[in-house]
Amino acid sequence: MVHFSEDIISLSSSIIEKASKLNYRITLAESCTGGLISSSITAVPGSSNVFTCGYVTYSNHSKNRILGVPMDAIEQFGAVSDIVASAMAEGALALSKADISLSVTGIAGPKGGTKDKPVGLVFLSIAKINTDALIKKYIFAGSRDEIRRSAISAGLSLLLNQLQ
Amino acid sequence: MVHFSEDIISLSSSIIEKASKLNYRITLAESCTGGLISSSITAVPGSSNVFTCGYVTYSNHSKNRILGVPMDAIEQFGAVSDIVASAMAEGALALSKADISLSVTGIAGPKGGTKDKPVGLVFLSIAKINTDALIKKYIFAGSRDEIRRSAISAGLSLLLNQLQ
Repeated sequence: MVHFSEDIISLSSSIIEKASKLNYRITLAESCTGGLISSSITAVPGSSNVFTCGYVTYSNHSKNRILGVPMDAIEQFGAVSDIVASAMAEGALALSKADISLSVTGIAGPKGGTKDKPVGLVFLSIAKINTDALIKKYIFAGSRDEIRRSAISAGLSLLLNQLQ
Repeated sequence: MVHFSEDIISLSSSIIEKASKLNYRITLAESCTGGLISSSITAVPGSSNVFTCGYVTYSNHSKNRILGVPMDAIEQFGAVSDIVASAMAEGALALSKADISLSVTGIAGPKGGTKDKPVGLVFLSIAKINTDALIKKYIFAGSRDEIRRSAISAGLSLLLNQLQ
């Protein structure tokens, strides 16, 4: 069983309502959240009117091959970086011909953290046509599950906020 | 908050363990489950060793453009059909250069059902290199949530079973 809490469903419903009014199509590029933001939005009936597709680009290779994130950027700045987050959002937007995209890349742990990039570091990015990508940086506390949950809430909130 | 039950995490852990032993890379193409199977697998630490990427191809357009499912097949047989399920699995496998893929397409409801294709109808397909795609048909009972949950369990079980 998978259970979404009421706050997630409420945020997702608001996103679908707002995107429907704007006649906007949404796409997602998820790394550390592994498809959970797509799942949250599509948990709501009617989501097919606004949600076009999502990319769960977990490996570096898939970020490059599917979304067109330059390997140079991944190697130089790391997969968890502001540059890669915005390239993921822009890649998904271009590929899907959507109106707005949200990307997530982060270190959910328990392994993979470093001094400079600790477990809990998450970048979110929003891309819209003809607009520079917006990038947000977070450091979430807690377990792998808790970090993923925080990233979902922050991602949905940012997407809702940017739907205007 | 999103919560995965122990049976889902247990199935996902077994998939990761078995795929690691076989040195297999997994990809997913999800429609009605909206990313939940990718989320389940990536909920387990170590999943990045075997999970390469997932496609949440919700719209017909994205099934065609991203996974290469022929529009003719979607128009003739419907997005929820054995033909489209296997084309999704084969498209994801080819695109990701993975060793095994699982696809899911179904009618989670509450709307969208017909006499021939009721709410709860779900097709799963498994593709492996140089092997004909395997297709399974299910009719699940219950609400949208319950149908999605049944599809996740069935999908994870089928993937585990086919990892050999």
